[in-house]
Amino acid sequence: MNGAESLVETLAGAGVEVCFANPGTSEMHFVSALDRVGGVRCVLGLFEGVATGAADGYARMANRPASTLLHLGPGLANGLANVHNARRANTPMVNIVGDHATYHKEYDAPLTSDIEGAARPFSDWVRTSANSRAVARDGADAVAAAMASPGRVATLILPADASWGEADGPALLPPVEDRAPARPEAVAEAARLLRSGEPAVLFLGGPAVRGLGLELAGRISAGTGARLVTQTLSARLERGAGRVAPERLPYPVDAALEALAGTRHLLLVGTKPPVAFFAYPGKPSALSPPDCEVRTLAGPAEDVVGALEALAEELGVRGTAAPQTYEPPSLPEGALTPESAAAAVAALLPEDSVVVDEAITASAAFFSKTRGAPPHDWLDVTGGAIGIGLPLATGAAVACPDRKVVCLQADGSATYTVQALWTQAREGLDVTTVLLNNRSYAILKQELANVGAGDAGRRALDMMELDRPVLDWLALARGMGVEAGRAKTMEELEHQLTAGLRSEGPYLIDLVLPRLTL
Amino acid sequence: MNGAESLVETLAGAGVEVCFANPGTSEMHFVSALDRVGGVRCVLGLFEGVATGAADGYARMANRPASTLLHLGPGLANGLANVHNARRANTPMVNIVGDHATYHKEYDAPLTSDIEGAARPFSDWVRTSANSRAVARDGADAVAAAMASPGRVATLILPADASWGEADGPALLPPVEDRAPARPEAVAEAARLLRSGEPAVLFLGGPAVRGLGLELAGRISAGTGARLVTQTLSARLERGAGRVAPERLPYPVDAALEALAGTRHLLLVGTKPPVAFFAYPGKPSALSPPDCEVRTLAGPAEDVVGALEALAEELGVRGTAAPQTYEPPSLPEGALTPESAAAAVAALLPEDSVVVDEAITASAAFFSKTRGAPPHDWLDVTGGAIGIGLPLATGAAVACPDRKVVCLQADGSATYTVQALWTQAREGLDVTTVLLNNRSYAILKQELANVGAGDAGRRALDMMELDRPVLDWLALARGMGVEAGRAKTMEELEHQLTAGLRSEGPYLIDLVLPRLTL
Repeated sequence: MNGAESLVETLAGAGVEVCFANPGTSEMHFVSALDRVGGVRCVLGLFEGVATGAADGYARMANRPASTLLHLGPGLANGLANVHNARRANTPMVNIVGDHATYHKEYDAPLTSDIEGAARPFSDWVRTSANSRAVARDGADAVAAAMASPGRVATLILPADASWGEADGPALLPPVEDRAPARPEAVAEAARLLRSGEPAVLFLGGPAVRGLGLELAGRISAGTGARLVTQTLSARLERGAGRVAPERLPYPVDAALEALAGTRHLLLVGTKPPVAFFAYPGKPSALSPPDCEVRTLAGPAEDVVGALEALAEELGVRGTAAPQTYEPPSLPEGALTPESAAAAVAALLPEDSVVVDEAITASAAFFSKTRGAPPHDWLDVTGGAIGIGLPLATGAAVACPDRKVVCLQADGSATYTVQALWTQAREGLDVTTVLLNNRSYAILKQELANVGAGDAGRRALDMMELDRPVLDWLALARGMGVEAGRAKTMEELEHQLTAGLRSEGPYLIDLVLPRLTL
Repeated sequence: MNGAESLVETLAGAGVEVCFANPGTSEMHFVSALDRVGGVRCVLGLFEGVATGAADGYARMANRPASTLLHLGPGLANGLANVHNARRANTPMVNIVGDHATYHKEYDAPLTSDIEGAARPFSDWVRTSANSRAVARDGADAVAAAMASPGRVATLILPADASWGEADGPALLPPVEDRAPARPEAVAEAARLLRSGEPAVLFLGGPAVRGLGLELAGRISAGTGARLVTQTLSARLERGAGRVAPERLPYPVDAALEALAGTRHLLLVGTKPPVAFFAYPGKPSALSPPDCEVRTLAGPAEDVVGALEALAEELGVRGTAAPQTYEPPSLPEGALTPESAAAAVAALLPEDSVVVDEAITASAAFFSKTRGAPPHDWLDVTGGAIGIGLPLATGAAVACPDRKVVCLQADGSATYTVQALWTQAREGLDVTTVLLNNRSYAILKQELANVGAGDAGRRALDMMELDRPVLDWLALARGMGVEAGRAKTMEELEHQLTAGLRSEGPYLIDLVLPRLTL
């Protein structure tokens, strides 16, 4: 057994059963090991950002770490933007990056680079295997590091000779660092504040926007009058009919300030304080009011659900939460706008869908209209690095073969990792992509004004317009092997949505929207 | 005048007239400054790897630094693979990376990351502007750092408040570090070795494979019998009829060892020693024979042409080099193979073309067949990070609007940065892409055996086959706004080449090749 084989067997034994890969020469022993050692399904991406984004989507939905296989420093670099998103989602992720053989490094061959240096700013754990007999242990340690609460990014660098040299066998997963227990004093303090009757917000993230955590938050809200608000971007939010429906903090800084205005106590539950996405001249970075006290009931790495249970107990709120009722919008008529398109998607959304939201400027409309749709999961671009939508949907579909994945995808962002469509076709994944085609970086047109950068001249506008030439999304999807249709009217959208949602493979709807003009 | 305006004016004043950009919110003041301050042409890419690869191609052909504009850590990360290639090409490059406002960093907003940490492994110079009044000086220092011999990567991080705050005006380019002068003792030693009559190789790179440097190397070779050999990958090699034609070191390690076998003296001229691209079990990393003496006539940062002049003087070789004669292959008939396709391209290659070579497994055939073609420049993937071909061609075409750019592009590599086609269409660039479509990562099929990874099973092969589904390159090109045609026979290829080379805009030829089977 060589080092690569010991690693594949270790990963499989630790429950890391899927590897999203874009390998090269230095990864050939790992690839070859896939056939000799069972237990790991390797999914090929045509670009590393597809692999890392898909791993994130997989892990968010499978509740277990995903792995990636990448080719030296440049291959890792290509995947880092979506590693950044994964890290902000607290996704457990194991990146395996091949490197030159240890003895070859000193020759400074063309592909040589400082892989540890490149990995470190985007990883919580980085290690280079010293030799082939260390690989299995290193791999097991990487998985444990990734699974440590609340979910982390581990990057293991695998020199070629550590892959091909002799190994002793697989290693067992070491004990995984558990969530820190709920702090009784934080629970008591939270109870005291909520009992005060002063305006309070439970600010939710992580396990507090899913399952029992969300249900408990709903009960506490019903029993105390505290508002429930989530971060603008959640790794995985369970929502729709029958579920507790927190408000979502708006992205625009003025709207966010208004949403939190008057709040006297803001309790952090599984997340960090609300802050502006960007700095805007003359506007605050912190979004809670100056006189609001921000306290932590449970941080992201703590036992969030346990803290909510203890708080509910302490408050004596044993009743049920007031869940969202089933009230999808009716199928709209009239012009195709982000709002009417959102209503159409909400009207037709299948139960138990996974919705991936990289809709950017159209996100608010889709989020709002789907509030009363059948229950579904909602995945956001947690780190704000665009180009994750198509990969995230790809990975989510690998994790959930029995669920429909609906990807709400802005056109500008879609171009970054458009290669994900090919992996969707290759794996026959059940993803319906609603491509929101406004032929511009519409968000930048808004942000140009928000940051006070003055009027846009011709050259500035040129950096925000994507209509010269127009991207033909039908051609691009079909070029990647994905069936596609176009909707320019509400009738066509209804027809296309029906076709896409009925399809069991990938389908892209080119939804032609009006262009935002300045 | 704000910081961003002072930077744009500084760049223009320092001769950095083109900026390949993919901006976001934190770069809006820079973008807005483009209209208020003249002198910088901004070229939009739909992905950051397009921007950095195009900047490399531009700088290689324009002999001046190119700049890029990127969006925080993830935007930089997306561009780093091609920054790696640029650095290995000794390309002068100034990356401008927007960041959060200085006072916003502590809030750890979603897009926050360690940008300096991400830049450092791929840059020779990294600085974050402290405030708006420092930006102009920082920008001028960045350009000077990039222009320092032999050409370097400078990354300037620009916090948003340094962009929008008050500045004093542009800064002048400080003195640029010149090439270190030729070392007389190295010249004398080289002359002594070449006079010994023992088998010698001048191993060429940088300025030694272009213009006067190449001509001088040719004269020295003609006068002494020393062989001329270049690195496998050159940043910019001037070749074809009428030029000195060095051998190119083969990529396969056995062929490279054979090419240098018997060499007693290897003189480095503007480059580093020959080393294997990867390590292969049981094979050496250094490619020069064990008993060969490797000496440096002039390192990459030294005055390479001056050293060659001094050496020619010392040797008294005042005669002319024996240049390559004009002997393009005739148009072939028969089956379409990499060799016959290469002959067809060589037969029709316009004079003064710029050839971009990301042909990977087909590269050797194209390089060999074009040896006697009309004079042209040849640009390689210097850092071995694939996904630079289409961007490199894009940038070269921006730099050389009067020259035909021919991009020899393997299909697997093309998918990484396929978005470059859109920029070619947008800017109306005269690039003919010969898309070498073998529906596989053919190089990996060869390398799997080379590294001794054993027989490929079904799962391993799955990581190397791109035919499930087949990528439709006509659709992909047209989807990006680029005219395209397909060639499955030699007649069709001739027809397509004629159409592509006659076109004054971008054109892609989907050249359908047999698939390499194991």
